[in-house]
Amino acid sequence: MKVNVRIIPPDRELKLKAGDNLRSALIETGIPLDSPCGGQGTCLKCKVQLSGVSQKHTELELEKLSREELDGGWHLACQVKIEAAGEVRLPEVEISRAKASFGLLGEEIALQPNVRGISFKLSRPSLSDQRADWNRLAAYLEKQIEGPVSTELSLLRELSARLREWHFSGEAVAVGSEVVALDPPGSTGDRLGVAIDIGTTTLAAGLVDLGTGRVIAIDAELNPQIAFGADVVSRIMYAQEAPGNRTKLQRELVRGLNQLLVRLCRSARREKDRIFEATVVGNTTMLHTLLGLEARNIALAPYIGGLNQSLDLPARELDLQIHPRGKVHVLPSIASFVGADTVAVILAAKLHRTRTPKLAIDIGTNGEVMLATRKGVLTASTAAGPAFEGGRIKYGMRAVRGAISSFQAAPELNYSVIGGVAPKGICGSGLIDLVAELYWTGILDQKGRILLPAEISSRRAGKLASRVRARKQAREFVIFSDEKREVVLTQQDVRELQLAKGAIRAGVELLMKEAGVTSGDIQEVLLAGVFGNYINRERAVTLGLIPPFPLEKIHFIGNGAMDGALKALLNLEERRQAEKIAAEAHHIELSGRPDFEATFLRCLSFGN
Amino acid sequence: MKVNVRIIPPDRELKLKAGDNLRSALIETGIPLDSPCGGQGTCLKCKVQLSGVSQKHTELELEKLSREELDGGWHLACQVKIEAAGEVRLPEVEISRAKASFGLLGEEIALQPNVRGISFKLSRPSLSDQRADWNRLAAYLEKQIEGPVSTELSLLRELSARLREWHFSGEAVAVGSEVVALDPPGSTGDRLGVAIDIGTTTLAAGLVDLGTGRVIAIDAELNPQIAFGADVVSRIMYAQEAPGNRTKLQRELVRGLNQLLVRLCRSARREKDRIFEATVVGNTTMLHTLLGLEARNIALAPYIGGLNQSLDLPARELDLQIHPRGKVHVLPSIASFVGADTVAVILAAKLHRTRTPKLAIDIGTNGEVMLATRKGVLTASTAAGPAFEGGRIKYGMRAVRGAISSFQAAPELNYSVIGGVAPKGICGSGLIDLVAELYWTGILDQKGRILLPAEISSRRAGKLASRVRARKQAREFVIFSDEKREVVLTQQDVRELQLAKGAIRAGVELLMKEAGVTSGDIQEVLLAGVFGNYINRERAVTLGLIPPFPLEKIHFIGNGAMDGALKALLNLEERRQAEKIAAEAHHIELSGRPDFEATFLRCLSFGN
Repeated sequence: MKVNVRIIPPDRELKLKAGDNLRSALIETGIPLDSPCGGQGTCLKCKVQLSGVSQKHTELELEKLSREELDGGWHLACQVKIEAAGEVRLPEVEISRAKASFGLLGEEIALQPNVRGISFKLSRPSLSDQRADWNRLAAYLEKQIEGPVSTELSLLRELSARLREWHFSGEAVAVGSEVVALDPPGSTGDRLGVAIDIGTTTLAAGLVDLGTGRVIAIDAELNPQIAFGADVVSRIMYAQEAPGNRTKLQRELVRGLNQLLVRLCRSARREKDRIFEATVVGNTTMLHTLLGLEARNIALAPYIGGLNQSLDLPARELDLQIHPRGKVHVLPSIASFVGADTVAVILAAKLHRTRTPKLAIDIGTNGEVMLATRKGVLTASTAAGPAFEGGRIKYGMRAVRGAISSFQAAPELNYSVIGGVAPKGICGSGLIDLVAELYWTGILDQKGRILLPAEISSRRAGKLASRVRARKQAREFVIFSDEKREVVLTQQDVRELQLAKGAIRAGVELLMKEAGVTSGDIQEVLLAGVFGNYINRERAVTLGLIPPFPLEKIHFIGNGAMDGALKALLNLEERRQAEKIAAEAHHIELSGRPDFEATFLRCLSFGN
Repeated sequence: MKVNVRIIPPDRELKLKAGDNLRSALIETGIPLDSPCGGQGTCLKCKVQLSGVSQKHTELELEKLSREELDGGWHLACQVKIEAAGEVRLPEVEISRAKASFGLLGEEIALQPNVRGISFKLSRPSLSDQRADWNRLAAYLEKQIEGPVSTELSLLRELSARLREWHFSGEAVAVGSEVVALDPPGSTGDRLGVAIDIGTTTLAAGLVDLGTGRVIAIDAELNPQIAFGADVVSRIMYAQEAPGNRTKLQRELVRGLNQLLVRLCRSARREKDRIFEATVVGNTTMLHTLLGLEARNIALAPYIGGLNQSLDLPARELDLQIHPRGKVHVLPSIASFVGADTVAVILAAKLHRTRTPKLAIDIGTNGEVMLATRKGVLTASTAAGPAFEGGRIKYGMRAVRGAISSFQAAPELNYSVIGGVAPKGICGSGLIDLVAELYWTGILDQKGRILLPAEISSRRAGKLASRVRARKQAREFVIFSDEKREVVLTQQDVRELQLAKGAIRAGVELLMKEAGVTSGDIQEVLLAGVFGNYINRERAVTLGLIPPFPLEKIHFIGNGAMDGALKALLNLEERRQAEKIAAEAHHIELSGRPDFEATFLRCLSFGN
């Protein structure tokens, strides 16, 4: 039996099957519902307000939801069995559209793109020169580009009519050696390219005018796959659950990318079918889901992907809506957890060409560590998890309106909230700030325990101590509280952050050990990903996320992965460098090392 | 308004639009109806019997159809306007399935195909060897074939599961450098290829086991495009008439090819998705319609095609139903009327390597002439038209049941009919025989006039003279006549044959002139196409179709085009030779020569 359910927003009437799980049913129909725990009832993110139906709360809901929420008809969608027609109100959705920051601005990149425009003016056919149309055009173009050219059947199908209409002159657009489009003579049509960074959480794209080399628009969008799980492992699990799921992940991702392209082109007032090439970076799981490859073995020891090589393919094979004959270049990956995004960071930061030791750390939903010396680049991946982005944190949220984004503990608790409203939760940067401040004030000890007022010895704690409370044996630090809601940091939240921090620090330590360098040898530390956007350098040192480097050695490089994708789009030599990086980087599989466990445990502690 | 019309055979009820032309409506719905004149009411081939409706005969029908036909309710479909529901009986359809004859049998071709099988046994992944699955397989295969390998996304999508199922061993099938299929370890799956010759009238295909090099099945099929016109020019015109027609020609052709493939595989008991590559030859118009390219400029001076180069493309782009990742190699053409079929004949006959002058003539629906000397190969195309295949001949028909296939004039008229039934018409070989005999007996003079009994001077004519009659000012030779029907040769039929003969002979003369050789210099004459199958050597000399060569210099090479396609399938070096032939052959455009007209007029006469 089907029942009519009205979903607000977007105010859409759906026919859902009675008896089905509401969360699953909504996700199936493409309604974006944030549920990082995958429906296990632990993340508390899939709250919906039901009306027109009197649905009983489950025991789990009664335990997890506030009085206010219960009274207001709020439920966890993952706990609701669809029973009767009614209305489902979704929480206000705000999509992070934070522009990715780019480090490229200072650097001049020589324009030598794979996409080229070539004017042609052919001799007219005659009884004494009966070369076929393509033979004639190809011969001309081959002289211009000094190499063979090819094209697709669909272009050949329109070639003869176009050549005659244009009196055998025109402008050809080639991607590599393939002619993908023909324009009338004298045309000044755009030749655009797009660099895409597929993050587990965020899709970012930069639109480039390949005629001038200018980046003309940059934008970001939530990865729609997030409805199927917050991290790569939960997406891999989802893909395995049912036969069509792999395809579904692929389609959702491409749908998100296509939306992003539409927005980019609208803001730059360009046509998306003038985009002739896309360069793509991302972690290997994201690239596997983009290509529709099986990713399950990435998550199982010995962590083997289907493909780490670079790949050139027609955009239409992925249904990426650029020019119908446009091409996609996926950059190569190094290992299953050191993807093309890391290759791109190395490329952007020129780590592969350094003469002095440099350390780079890229934190997205995973954390990659790179250590470059004259002998080459060592890489490691760390199971940092999504804590730095607010994932698996009770009141964690993305950096959108209502998120506390920074803290100051002394002389008393001060924080700023995005949008200047009452706080709803904490985003990644706020979390790091808060934990670092609580450690500094002595409310957190070195082992990460929240101390009760009686246990606190530091004088720095001051009035903050009164905010610590114990609830059901678990300790919490109360950040905000009024009659309607509260925002707290739990002991479990601190543990999540410690695991993330420990993983990254252990990676740094082991790479230094492998390369035989000490932190004193390292001349520069580059922080990419969320670091660049949100994390304070001093606090990263305070917490011990990185060794105690002098602050002047630490630089933010923003979204280095996007920078690398742009470089590969703008310059073919950079693209060749990316191949070299992937082939020559030496990946250290941390889980395979006997000294990993001890190092990791040591690195869980706060401080340096 | 739509009316119900039952079509028998195949006994199918169609809803046709009242007021529409019956011939067009039948062809639109895919009913095969032979109508080489394209609906102009001149070929008289689209006869249909109407019942259940009393349709008046048009004036043209009253003139062209016999009393018997008129009384029996027969009409010309091209003259019928659909008015009311009823029944349409089509004439008995018999499709020529004459097996193409092959000259290859005597020649040993080294097996060096583009399709290869490569066994692999990979090292198992481990924490110390984390190469991705494709990287691992590609590295292995690249060592085996000493060059880079690639593959398609669809294979990558199944790769990881297959490798694990087969414990990292198996058999790869590569077409060129692309891996197109994976088989389990120890598999003895076929690796098949197919050579295809697309004639204007006949599609021929040879199925080859590329593991052994054996041709395992050969078959032919009527080109279904014949419903849209008998010759290349009428098909080109059809393609221009309406926007969808080009696609329709393409689909019909591929439908015919796919039927042929099904039959080939059934007779050889093989699976069609074990065919990994097809080599394709044909005249340029047929290749243009196969690829869906615009062919109109082929028919207009200066006769320019869209593409004469060879082309490699995925079979699925054409919807050719071989292995889903199988490839198609279309051989190169020389000029708009000297197609890949001619390249294939040159390849098969090794004309490009000859040290003594050799002449070759290939007659399909068009006639191509090749003259090879030590200096290279000269080619010409002649507008021979379809007369040699019975086209544009009043009682002309293909070589099927009821066709007169040979004549003997002395001591009296003797002929043989295919199937041993009463004659219905004359096929190409019968036509040549008859005209040659009538010329020899003096009933035809050198200029091709049918002489009335009073005008005949030769004693050889004997009783045959009485078969000549004049009807409405046009003279006819009566071959067969009873109460129900007659079969005659008209003066117009003789003219058609003369035009065809004159065109070919002029081509031969002009190529000899161009090369500076005389017929005495020519060491060998190779006759391909319908010649090999049907035309008697002596009569070709008697008529003056070819210069008076000693008979021992004249050899039939059967379907040389198919032989060439097979060679290109079996051996990559032969395929490279085909490229060389197309690049180096010197094409003489006859219509561009000042001496063409006079030579052609001189060659219209019979005799040598």
